Parts: sequence; structure tokens; C-alpha cells
Amino acid sequence: MNTTSVTEHYNEIIETALKDLNLPVAPNGLYEPIRYILSLGGKRMRPLLALLSAAQFTDDVAKALPVGLAAEVFHNFSLLHDDVMDNAPLRRGKATVHEKWDINTAILSGDGMLIIAYKCLEKLSGKNLIPILNLFNQCALEVCEGQQYDVEFATQEKVQLDEYIEMIRLKTAVLPAFCMQAAAIACNVEDDEVEKLRVIGETLGIAFQLMDDFLDVYGNPETFGKQVGGDILENKKTYLYLYALETAEGDDLDALKQWFSTSAKHNPEEKINTVTKLYTKLGVKTATQSLIQKYSELASDLISTLPSSSEKKELLLNYTSLLQHRIQ
Amino acid sequence: MNTTSVTEHYNEIIETALKDLNLPVAPNGLYEPIRYILSLGGKRMRPLLALLSAAQFTDDVAKALPVGLAAEVFHNFSLLHDDVMDNAPLRRGKATVHEKWDINTAILSGDGMLIIAYKCLEKLSGKNLIPILNLFNQCALEVCEGQQYDVEFATQEKVQLDEYIEMIRLKTAVLPAFCMQAAAIACNVEDDEVEKLRVIGETLGIAFQLMDDFLDVYGNPETFGKQVGGDILENKKTYLYLYALETAEGDDLDALKQWFSTSAKHNPEEKINTVTKLYTKLGVKTATQSLIQKYSELASDLISTLPSSSEKKELLLNYTSLLQHRIQ
Repeated sequence: MNTTSVTEHYNEIIETALKDLNLPVAPNGLYEPIRYILSLGGKRMRPLLALLSAAQFTDDVAKALPVGLAAEVFHNFSLLHDDVMDNAPLRRGKATVHEKWDINTAILSGDGMLIIAYKCLEKLSGKNLIPILNLFNQCALEVCEGQQYDVEFATQEKVQLDEYIEMIRLKTAVLPAFCMQAAAIACNVEDDEVEKLRVIGETLGIAFQLMDDFLDVYGNPETFGKQVGGDILENKKTYLYLYALETAEGDDLDALKQWFSTSAKHNPEEKINTVTKLYTKLGVKTATQSLIQKYSELASDLISTLPSSSEKKELLLNYTSLLQHRIQ
Repeated sequence: MNTTSVTEHYNEIIETALKDLNLPVAPNGLYEPIRYILSLGGKRMRPLLALLSAAQFTDDVAKALPVGLAAEVFHNFSLLHDDVMDNAPLRRGKATVHEKWDINTAILSGDGMLIIAYKCLEKLSGKNLIPILNLFNQCALEVCEGQQYDVEFATQEKVQLDEYIEMIRLKTAVLPAFCMQAAAIACNVEDDEVEKLRVIGETLGIAFQLMDDFLDVYGNPETFGKQVGGDILENKKTYLYLYALETAEGDDLDALKQWFSTSAKHNPEEKINTVTKLYTKLGVKTATQSLIQKYSELASDLISTLPSSSEKKELLLNYTSLLQHRIQ
């Protein structure tokens, strides 16, 4: 099978498993919002990375399914609560849970989802459950830490580029890292390979988030799915903004600060256009692209040292390349 | 040692362990609210029940400490999120987390606490961790279900008495049940005894919540800690109200419905006095007392069949009696 059909096959396994989570029926007010957010789809990147990692070591990729499901449910739990905190009306083009129901429902159903994420791990064999549980605990807490830093950065005057990378490592990258690392543990792989998978997942996760920031400015409006320039309008301290701030001097620096100084009424289109041009002039576009490239190459180099067949490595490389080239 | 000094000794073990949870320092905005709510005190009923259960089977009661700590942290997590949902300004006489910080902080720090509750279980030995983790997952989800039913009852026209008991079983009783059951598992006790401890915990939990409802109407204002009559003012569908509604006829039924029909301006003191008198006339006071008595006796009878020494059983009996006689 080629990569696309393998990924499609894994996707079917994941969607079937998500439908078979056997959530209780009652009380419907608790479980219906959980079914709703899980039904909204998404790339299923985390469980796919778990299965693709398992594929490096076994034909029985379902061994990593509990890990992938726990991560996917956890990820959707974090989206649910983040959407409340951000007061976001839409998620994947549909009403968010707190919009469709209310904030209290979103809080409580989110809590339920976090517990269901842990329940997904119950299906692991005893020997592997304990180390994977410990990793999941650590990863879950780090995601909360990343979210907290993200919140704090909004009102923090100066954010360093390395602080930003550490924030996205926590908020976004530790979960794919957990998926790949725990998938390897579930396949009873040597410690060296387990650690390698963790680093691959973390590196991919950082590249993925940087690409998200990049596409928010330079993405194709027809395929991006969200409003291009949204981060600029919201004065978000992304990698692109922080890099620009570090690089700009004189009038450019004044202009940048001016555009980001207030949420007062600018003409939105003018703001997006001017800031984007300023970013490009300051070398933000190429700097971000080359940083993404650096992380992606690091991941690819590590993947190429895996002990699996070149065919299996190709699967993982192709999928990560797909993630990286979402721009096209 | 007599019961009080044993309980005090266990309390010291618990308070020390809570201080030694080794919460990370940064980001302070995530962990400070967690330290805050855990420092507000409380009866520590759940970890005490865990240690008192362990004491039935071993001198090394610390074996049950991970269970007790997980339950205490989980309990405080649920209070934190419930206080957001109820928009409550005070908890144990101090500002609630969403009041002292804000709602987003309360949501995220609560999420962190739920994960920390799971982390507390990491200290259990491997063999016992897996069954205890599964029980904790189930218990945690049931607490969410109970909370959801509690929310739904507020706007549900008719609530049956047995639906109410099932709601408080989920919301309040499964957590002490988990504590006692899991403490027994942590002490490597036979399955029969484990199940017995579960039933004792659940029974005590139901008695405890009924006593809470009872004291809200008939408690001593000087020792109760909250406003006596608070549930009546808020038209809460407690056991007392539902029993009254089931029992009342004619004018009494009309009066009861009238007092609870609207949150329109009544004189609060008049409402509390009139409804309390109506409750008493309808036999609500004695009915609730005898139901509490029934559950307490069931728990005591089961405790007396434990294989432990009469001295150890006495410890547990005395503590449960203390819980039951909070009225005095």
C-alpha cells in the first residue's frame, strides 16, 4: 500500500475506535457534548503518529491505539476548555460547546473528557500501562503549563524567542511526543528507540506549531480554513511577531509597536497588509521558514536512523512531510 | 491512643503529605491557585477514611496515602470547578479561586488539579496501581455524572426521591467509597473485604450528604458555618424538599409550591421560618433523621463484621459517629 492508502486505513481504524469508545448514554447532558466535539473531525494527527510509530516495530499497530485515543480525547478536551477561555465561537467551522450549550456544560463535559482520556489507557497491558500512565500524567500537566504561559504572554511586556519556543513545546509538542514515545513502549521497544521517538514527536510538534503561526500570515486564504491574518488582528505574540520585534529598528520598530499597541479600531485589512509587508521586509518569512525546515530536517534525520524497513520509515516521513507542506 | 489522638495523628500525616506534593513552582499562575485551595483546609474526610480503612488491616497506614491524597486533590478540583459553575464567592470562608483570580484561572488550575490527583496514584505499587486506577477512573466519571444530574434537577419539574439518592450517591458517595475500597486494595486484602469497604464508604457518603441537607435546615446557626436555610432560599431540591413535596397535600402543598415557585422577593427570614415549620409539620425532620440513622447503622453493622481488632474497628466507628453528629 502507498502512504496515502496506509494513512487512510489507519484513519479508519481511529475513527472506528473513537465511535466505539462506548461512552455511557446517561446523563446525556454530560456525554452529548463529548460525542459532539469528537465528531467534528480534525486531522487526527496524534493517533496517526501513534499508529505510524507502532508500524515501525510491529504489524499489529493496534497495540498503540489506546495511546492514540487517549491523546486524541485529551487534545479535544484541551480544545474544549481553551475555547471557553478564549471565548471562541467556532471550532472546525461548527459552534463550540459553550456556544451550542453553555459555559458550565463546557467545563463539566471537558472534565469528563479528561477522565475518559485516562480511561482509554486502561486497555494497555499491565506491564506497559504504568510507564505510559506516568508519561501521560507529565505530558498532560505540561500542556496545562503551556496554556498558562500562553495566557501570561498576552499581557507580558517582553517575551523572548526561546521562551516562546518553550511555550509551544509544552502547549503543542509534548502531546505528539507522548504519542510516539508511548506507542514505542506499547510495542516493547528498547529504551534508546523510545527516547528517539519522543524527540521526533517533540520536534515535529514544534515544527507543526510554527507552521500554524506561519500559515496564519502567509497561508492561502482559500485553503487555510481560518482568516489569514487573524493572529495579527488579535495582536498575538507569535514567533513571527517576536522575531520581527527582535529584528526591527527605527521607524520599522515604531510602526510595529504602533500597530500592536492597542486593539483600537484599525482598518483590519490595512493592518494585516501593512504588518505582513513589514514582516517580509524584516526577513520574518524566510527566518520562520528556515526554522521550520531545521526542525523538520532534525525529525527526518532521526526517522532515518530507526531500525525499521525503509518502506516503514517512508510511511512516517511522508506523513510528516504532508503535515509540513500544508501550505500548498 | 484514643480515637481523637489517632485521628489527629492521621491528620498530621495527611497535612504533611499535602504540603509535600512537590508541585512545581513555575508557572506560578497555574500552581499558586492549587496551593491556595489545598491550604484552605477542610475535614480531610476522604484521606482520613482511607487511612482509617488501612488501619483495619495494617500498621503501615501510609500504604493508603496515595489513595487518600488522590481523592482529596480530586475533591478540591471538583469544588474549584463547581464553585465556578455555581458562581460561588466563598469557600471555607475565603474567596473562591475564580473570585481571587478569574474564571479562566479556575478552569485551568482545576484541570491541573485533576491531573495531579492522577499523579498521586503513581506512588502505589505496580500490582495495586492498575485496579485502583480503573476504580478511580470510574469514580471520577461518576462524580461528573452526579454533578450533571444535580445541575439538571434544578430545572427539572419532577425529581423522585430515589433519583435524588442516586444523584448524591454519584456526586458525593462514590469518592469516599473509592477511598475505603482502594485503601483495602492497597493493603492487599481479600476481595470480599474490599467490596465491604466500598459499601461502607458509599453508605457513609450518602448519610453524610443527607446530614448536610438536614443541617442546612435544622443546624445550629452558631456552629453550622454556612447560613442556615440557604438551601430553602435558593429553592434547592434537597431530600427535605422532595420528601415534603411527596408528603404534602391541600393547602400545605399549595404553600410549599408557592414558596418555591419563584425567586421573586420574599422576606428571606420569613421564607426560611415558614418553610422550616412546614417541613417539621410534614414529618420531614424525623423522616430525614431516620433515613440518616438507617444508612449510618448499615455502615456500623458492616464495620462491626470487619476481621480487624475491636480497637481498630472502634477507631472507624468513632470517626463515622463524629461525622454523623456534626449537628451537636
